[in-house]
Amino acid sequence: MKHIKTFFSSVAQVMFQGNVSCGILFIVGIFWGAYSAGTPAVAWGALVGTAVSILTGYLLGYPHNEGEQGLWGFNGVLVGCALMTFLGSTPLGWAALVVCSAMTTWVRTALNRLGEPLGVSSYTFPFVMSTWIFLAAARMLGGIDVVALSHPMLPASFVHLTHSAAPSFIDFVEWTLRGVSQVFLIDSWITGVLFLAGLLIASPLSALWAVIGSAGGAALALLFGAPTEAIAHGMYGFSPTLTAIALGAIFLRPSLRTTIWALVGIVGTFFVQASMNVLLAPVGLPSLTAPFCIATWLFILPTFKNQLKN
Amino acid sequence: MKHIKTFFSSVAQVMFQGNVSCGILFIVGIFWGAYSAGTPAVAWGALVGTAVSILTGYLLGYPHNEGEQGLWGFNGVLVGCALMTFLGSTPLGWAALVVCSAMTTWVRTALNRLGEPLGVSSYTFPFVMSTWIFLAAARMLGGIDVVALSHPMLPASFVHLTHSAAPSFIDFVEWTLRGVSQVFLIDSWITGVLFLAGLLIASPLSALWAVIGSAGGAALALLFGAPTEAIAHGMYGFSPTLTAIALGAIFLRPSLRTTIWALVGIVGTFFVQASMNVLLAPVGLPSLTAPFCIATWLFILPTFKNQLKN
Amino acid sequence: MKHIKTFFSSVAQVMFQGNVSCGILFIVGIFWGAYSAGTPAVAWGALVGTAVSILTGYLLGYPHNEGEQGLWGFNGVLVGCALMTFLGSTPLGWAALVVCSAMTTWVRTALNRLGEPLGVSSYTFPFVMSTWIFLAAARMLGGIDVVALSHPMLPASFVHLTHSAAPSFIDFVEWTLRGVSQVFLIDSWITGVLFLAGLLIASPLSALWAVIGSAGGAALALLFGAPTEAIAHGMYGFSPTLTAIALGAIFLRPSLRTTIWALVGIVGTFFVQASMNVLLAPVGLPSLTAPFCIATWLFILPTFKNQLKN
Repeated sequence: MKHIKTFFSSVAQVMFQGNVSCGILFIVGIFWGAYSAGTPAVAWGALVGTAVSILTGYLLGYPHNEGEQGLWGFNGVLVGCALMTFLGSTPLGWAALVVCSAMTTWVRTALNRLGEPLGVSSYTFPFVMSTWIFLAAARMLGGIDVVALSHPMLPASFVHLTHSAAPSFIDFVEWTLRGVSQVFLIDSWITGVLFLAGLLIASPLSALWAVIGSAGGAALALLFGAPTEAIAHGMYGFSPTLTAIALGAIFLRPSLRTTIWALVGIVGTFFVQASMNVLLAPVGLPSLTAPFCIATWLFILPTFKNQLKN
Repeated sequence: MKHIKTFFSSVAQVMFQGNVSCGILFIVGIFWGAYSAGTPAVAWGALVGTAVSILTGYLLGYPHNEGEQGLWGFNGVLVGCALMTFLGSTPLGWAALVVCSAMTTWVRTALNRLGEPLGVSSYTFPFVMSTWIFLAAARMLGGIDVVALSHPMLPASFVHLTHSAAPSFIDFVEWTLRGVSQVFLIDSWITGVLFLAGLLIASPLSALWAVIGSAGGAALALLFGAPTEAIAHGMYGFSPTLTAIALGAIFLRPSLRTTIWALVGIVGTFFVQASMNVLLAPVGLPSLTAPFCIATWLFILPTFKNQLKN
Repeated sequence: MKHIKTFFSSVAQVMFQGNVSCGILFIVGIFWGAYSAGTPAVAWGALVGTAVSILTGYLLGYPHNEGEQGLWGFNGVLVGCALMTFLGSTPLGWAALVVCSAMTTWVRTALNRLGEPLGVSSYTFPFVMSTWIFLAAARMLGGIDVVALSHPMLPASFVHLTHSAAPSFIDFVEWTLRGVSQVFLIDSWITGVLFLAGLLIASPLSALWAVIGSAGGAALALLFGAPTEAIAHGMYGFSPTLTAIALGAIFLRPSLRTTIWALVGIVGTFFVQASMNVLLAPVGLPSLTAPFCIATWLFILPTFKNQLKN
């Protein structure tokens, strides 16, 4: 029973909630999205990644109360989704998934030791760092199939001059929901609805900021002329979603000042996102949630202590 | 009146001077260089960038005495020069400039928190980091025009085997002055003279080291066979100029030991500069003043406390 | 006499031994490997690099006891081997070698100041960082010949699908020995035997872990289908060799737990190695011992204090 609680709390912690019902709805959303896209391995990867990273915390003898809040497992969920999205579901692919999810548990401890004196945490960066290592390695290793990584290329190729028509309101809502679902690398507006429902149960303020973040990212991407295809699939929404929840509902005391700060944080995350899409092009790696981590560090570090919660 | 003082001190702080007359001469130099090159937006960008980054310090409620020494604004001046050098002067280009200069003020606070326990500051790295983000993003965003970034390419293409004739003394002086002017991304020997005049008013020792740094960078680049075109436009001079002032006149107590150390620092900066020109080639970004920041960290961190000023 | 002791201790410290006889055998191994490969400059580079980096420690007035344990010089040996492996043996090439080895001494002090509060050291990263700077710079500088760096390319080109036959036992032993010799960038199984003999004199446990690390790296590379050519030349062995000695024999108290941890560390190092081969491809730089440094940080930082030696 306790372990089931730990499991679902871990899934919910991806969006900073230690709430079991929220975690259950997230898992339902992941299964819906993965099965409807014909990639069931993504959903099973999420389960395995979560379980392995939690188990690793127990094996390493880390303090249980941390793990039971879901803090061991949230990077593992994302590793599971990412590795089964980009790599083939082969025995060696699953072996990579197991090593990579386990690794996030101690990489998190390692990175948190760096951030501790500065009052920041590693957020989802253990997932980003470990996943980058395994995805890059997969290109070199014939035993692991790369099925969905974009082709490495020089960023010169993507100067976009066309300006596409503004989307309808319905389209924009759908893009915003896809942005929320892309937090777990799922491309489905229905999953977006399920994720928001989970957030609503756990923290209505978080749900509100998730919508503002995803919609804000998409709106900025439209305004500044990012490729429409990417916006429509939520690629400019997922990192701002996380930044918005982090700054608007989790780490800062809500006030007019911090509300404005969270809105500026969405703008910052958008530009970091666009830049990382360019910087990672030559090695053909996805940015994952790195733009959220980088932007949130840049917006939390310079904040006055009296604006930080606890 | 106080605001005018803050404004010009900020411009002067790019070369570590909190001196109003020096800042005025720097602005004159920027205007001369920008107008004579037919890119007036660079000069106006410098003014807007400075003003925005100072205003941001007030809005965030940071301690005023810091800002009035010019420490909020010096990254903003450089953002203004850089964004209007590399990007088109369009409404969205100016919007990017405003967000990017504002960002330097809190990124500086964030990065200084990292450096504080080690006794180092972020120097111009908030400018470098923010500008890299916006320049890279601009390649992805159709709404922002890229007008002068070099084409992304694999560094294989630049193995240079030719050895060009040594420049005349007059040429070498001109290259040295251009190196000084390139600190603000201006390519004009007259601007170099104006910048040196400003330094001379504020700190003759700084002016001397600026000349040594720029000349040293150019001489090393000639000796080791860097592309002559780049040397002639001061591209190997600007980062060593800043390192030389930092190590020779600002952060270390002048002595025979620290004088030799500053000279070695120029050599170190030169190699970091050459390496970054290669490392950034695949993404087509300029090194900006990153070689100065990296070299200065590597030369300040291992210094004994009794060689550091205050 | 004292200086001779310092010299050979420095060479031995590359594999964490402050033992003169071990250092002598390492130098013999380097000379054998360099001369038998027809690249004698590599061996002489090792001598010069060591001497310069030790001399730099004295000139900078760093505490002598550190230097005499071999801690000033071990990065310099590696710089000497690396620069004379990849660059031409010309006057300017040797000038670069002198500056680069000297630099490792203070870069080590600088980086150790970052790691100190976290209880980690910079390991061979001063060598990695300084060498990357000079190798990248060499591509830009006509005065320094690049003779053996791999061509910069987009990593797309190396998706390997072939699965080669398993090596014979004798082959595998040879590959393992080459992995050990590649720690000093030497590609010779005889050198591998000499290095292991040196380790055996200084610390039999270290020798054992060196074999486990190199064999483990090669075995994982075979299992996951890395290019056979690279495995046969020890390219997947040298970083795991260092990680294995570091975690198995040097930094952690030997126990069942830490033994398993060192084995997992070999797995981690292998994936970091494969990923860096991809990430560095666009700039055509070798990973050097960076995979060892990164993996060892990630495995030491999250370790409980009571598992760390002293």
